[in-house]
Amino acid sequence: MTSLLGKWLKGTSSAHIAKDRLKLVLAYERSVRLPYIEEMKKEILAVVQKYTQTSKIDVRTNSNHDIDTLEVEIVLEKQAPTS
Amino acid sequence: MTSLLGKWLKGTSSAHIAKDRLKLVLAYERSVRLPYIEEMKKEILAVVQKYTQTSKIDVRTNSNHDIDTLEVEIVLEKQAPTS
Repeated sequence: MTSLLGKWLKGTSSAHIAKDRLKLVLAYERSVRLPYIEEMKKEILAVVQKYTQTSKIDVRTNSNHDIDTLEVEIVLEKQAPTS
Repeated sequence: MTSLLGKWLKGTSSAHIAKDRLKLVLAYERSVRLPYIEEMKKEILAVVQKYTQTSKIDVRTNSNHDIDTLEVEIVLEKQAPTS
């Protein structure tokens, strides 16, 4: 199954699956009542931003069949080359 | 492309895509040096655990082609039915 995930990761931006990308997906069944979900999403984004120190974050929410997804694509800042 | 993601979400556990599941995936190119990635993963898991208040968390790490993925499946505790 992970290969399907691999295809999705490659596929969503196969044209420009740049090296400097980090992707995060949060998915859940829409019918499940999660009163905290928006707060949790914000806090996860804050953690990612804290570590990646980037401002280039693309956030997409989607509703597909009965699944809600939060897709976050983080453009990583250029890293100093390893010595 | 999200439909491919939708298939993956369904597919990974199509047999038992139970309602009470929350899935989180973190994916990045393995060649990219992310010294903070383990710390960030821990902190994201801590955020998820804080909000979901669950102990039933299944964490899988995978290496596929040139992509490393962290797949987290959270079994949500039964919610009190909405009044």
